[in-house]
Amino acid sequence: MSANKQERGLTVLVLGADGYIGWPMAMHLSKLGHQVVAVDNLARRRWDREGGTYSLLPLRSMGRRVARWEAVSGRRIEWRRADLRNSEAVESLFQEFRPNAVIHFAEQRSAPFSMVDREHAVMTQVNNVVGTLNVLFAIRDQVPDCHLIKLGTMGEYGTPNIDIEEGYIDIEHNGRRDRLPFPKVPGSFYHLSKVHDSNNIYFATRAWGVRATDLNQGVVYGYQTDDTVLHPDLQTRFDFDSIWGTALNRFCVQAAVGQPLTVYGKGGQTRGFLDIRDTMACITLALENPAERGECRVFNQFTEQFSVLQLAELVARVRREHGLETTISHVPNPRVELEQHYYNAKHQLLLDLGLQPHLLGDTLLESVIQMVEKHAARIDHVLLARPSVSWKSGGNEVWDRYSSKDGGPRTAPVSRRPRRAAVV
Amino acid sequence: MSANKQERGLTVLVLGADGYIGWPMAMHLSKLGHQVVAVDNLARRRWDREGGTYSLLPLRSMGRRVARWEAVSGRRIEWRRADLRNSEAVESLFQEFRPNAVIHFAEQRSAPFSMVDREHAVMTQVNNVVGTLNVLFAIRDQVPDCHLIKLGTMGEYGTPNIDIEEGYIDIEHNGRRDRLPFPKVPGSFYHLSKVHDSNNIYFATRAWGVRATDLNQGVVYGYQTDDTVLHPDLQTRFDFDSIWGTALNRFCVQAAVGQPLTVYGKGGQTRGFLDIRDTMACITLALENPAERGECRVFNQFTEQFSVLQLAELVARVRREHGLETTISHVPNPRVELEQHYYNAKHQLLLDLGLQPHLLGDTLLESVIQMVEKHAARIDHVLLARPSVSWKSGGNEVWDRYSSKDGGPRTAPVSRRPRRAAVV
Repeated sequence: MSANKQERGLTVLVLGADGYIGWPMAMHLSKLGHQVVAVDNLARRRWDREGGTYSLLPLRSMGRRVARWEAVSGRRIEWRRADLRNSEAVESLFQEFRPNAVIHFAEQRSAPFSMVDREHAVMTQVNNVVGTLNVLFAIRDQVPDCHLIKLGTMGEYGTPNIDIEEGYIDIEHNGRRDRLPFPKVPGSFYHLSKVHDSNNIYFATRAWGVRATDLNQGVVYGYQTDDTVLHPDLQTRFDFDSIWGTALNRFCVQAAVGQPLTVYGKGGQTRGFLDIRDTMACITLALENPAERGECRVFNQFTEQFSVLQLAELVARVRREHGLETTISHVPNPRVELEQHYYNAKHQLLLDLGLQPHLLGDTLLESVIQMVEKHAARIDHVLLARPSVSWKSGGNEVWDRYSSKDGGPRTAPVSRRPRRAAVV
Repeated sequence: MSANKQERGLTVLVLGADGYIGWPMAMHLSKLGHQVVAVDNLARRRWDREGGTYSLLPLRSMGRRVARWEAVSGRRIEWRRADLRNSEAVESLFQEFRPNAVIHFAEQRSAPFSMVDREHAVMTQVNNVVGTLNVLFAIRDQVPDCHLIKLGTMGEYGTPNIDIEEGYIDIEHNGRRDRLPFPKVPGSFYHLSKVHDSNNIYFATRAWGVRATDLNQGVVYGYQTDDTVLHPDLQTRFDFDSIWGTALNRFCVQAAVGQPLTVYGKGGQTRGFLDIRDTMACITLALENPAERGECRVFNQFTEQFSVLQLAELVARVRREHGLETTISHVPNPRVELEQHYYNAKHQLLLDLGLQPHLLGDTLLESVIQMVEKHAARIDHVLLARPSVSWKSGGNEVWDRYSSKDGGPRTAPVSRRPRRAAVV
């Protein structure tokens, strides 16, 4: 990339740039020549301290990351610590940078965390809804042409007994027709917060002519992009606990340490998945092919569907091929969800824009398991043992033991985990 | 009603009992022998002071109202000042009274007020969503068998080009079928807040087995019930300004003072309407025929459909019959909404429970206009002149002139309105 291309690039606010996807996204867009402003309130690191969780891959501070990125790539990412609930901070960002686009990851994104108790449910919905409202008003009032690219989740839809369309469905009813938002049945206060956001964003496109792309993203896997591998300081998160980790990450960690893979309930729960490298590509496609003024474009952002049990069986098969027997254990499901259901979600629009998927293969699973083995000394096995949050009754005694509301040291000794290694 | 019936009645929390419907509802249920706990944070009176608005009918304090009700009826209503955003206050109410049912009116209920600016949008959504979440958690944790009766609005649906069903719709799509929540396209941050609530409540019924009735209420008209007429201290609100008043109230006031009836845009905007006496009956039917555990029952609570222009023509006709010529004036629509559209909303379920509607007739319109004429000295004509909030740009100079964020005296002199007459 030439300096010339960087000069012609878009100015992009990446909100939530300290997160699992936010940080690789900031580097990816910087590499492509866009002027990237990385924004975060570092809430995710605070929630780790509160809940006794951490990234298996050590994370550097945002200051160190952007400095390393500049040293490695020759490109500068602006880093600003700001909380989207603070409307003055949001307005200042828009005034200072007048962005062409905003990529908004800056939300509490864990379903179990939102189900711990009343405080977590309220915090999740207020944090996510107010942050997004503040962004919408800043766009209206400061940079009306700005394109909002908002990360939603496939979980907004739930598991209907009909095909899931991309955002809207044509309904014929009593001899009349309309194209309406696809009915959503979200399964946690977190998922609900994303539905609230989607509804607010759709309204802002209709009332104010905002440009918006609402990405209903599937479950993202993988721990590496072309940029995170350039230096250990540039790594992104790898979560494996029951609050922040995905089932696939949990299975990889359980396989690496020789524990049974714990499937919640029957394991027929089916979802859409995608490689983190495809997330980079999808969001770049959305950015470089913006929505029209007044358009609320919805893309289902995933590449393949798997059930939880299929994922466990994939991991077990990969291990068996290396001569390592791995068992699958069905444990009581802490969630309220269907464990056997129809699931067929459309995901054509990003392919039409040019997405070329990386499908989930043995090589990636082996690479994840090898990475885990390399960091095995950092694994707190108690975090793998059983879920700490029930959908019906909230945080259980595992949650109580590991959580620390003031973010101070936990009372339970954890020999294997370097204290605060996650924050440098 | 015998004392015996009162002893056998239900214990009911009426949340938002200082409001237009909440206060008559508290009396109505008290009269029927239920033990009523009236709860309010008096926010509506504060918002009046902020926005320079007021009820045309003078309102007594809640303390005076419940004392008068006891003197008139021999029945006691417990009055508690509490804010639903305060979870400890909500938990205390549930612990103290262990209600059989909660009737939840306690929300910011004005679409224009939610569109004034960012602060009002955020306040509306946080106030409404957090209050309802706190009620849901209190039910789960304190009185799981309690029946939540929640006031939503027909405005949640918007104006789809298909028939509006009661909460759910059977969809056949690509050869498969499911019954899903009716897709909603709400038209303001207020209406959105009600959709957020509906989604949160539906989740609580699925995850926790809460009993819920979500009432999508139409526009309520009328200023009298069997109980408000018993003594002037028992009157309820009558709002006529562009923030809190309905189009029908505005037309009645404009007719009474000899001004043209101001229709926003073409006036084809069609909605469901009901008499406040039917609101009493609908909510009593929901209370006395509760939802099952785990059921989220949705009723469309209205009795007739009218367009805004039809309402204006009704009022004009009633006046002409008294020899008073009344003109209709089309003014620029401050809202973003369709002004000509299909509208056919089902409203069968409450009729099936036994509702016997009072339809909108000349007698009621004449009675409203006569009431307005009696209080004509209290009318601030500037509040009738033109809308103070635009959907696109928020509060305009009319809003700025009349609003006072600290609730203190307004700078604009208002000769006709007794200062603070609304609060005694």
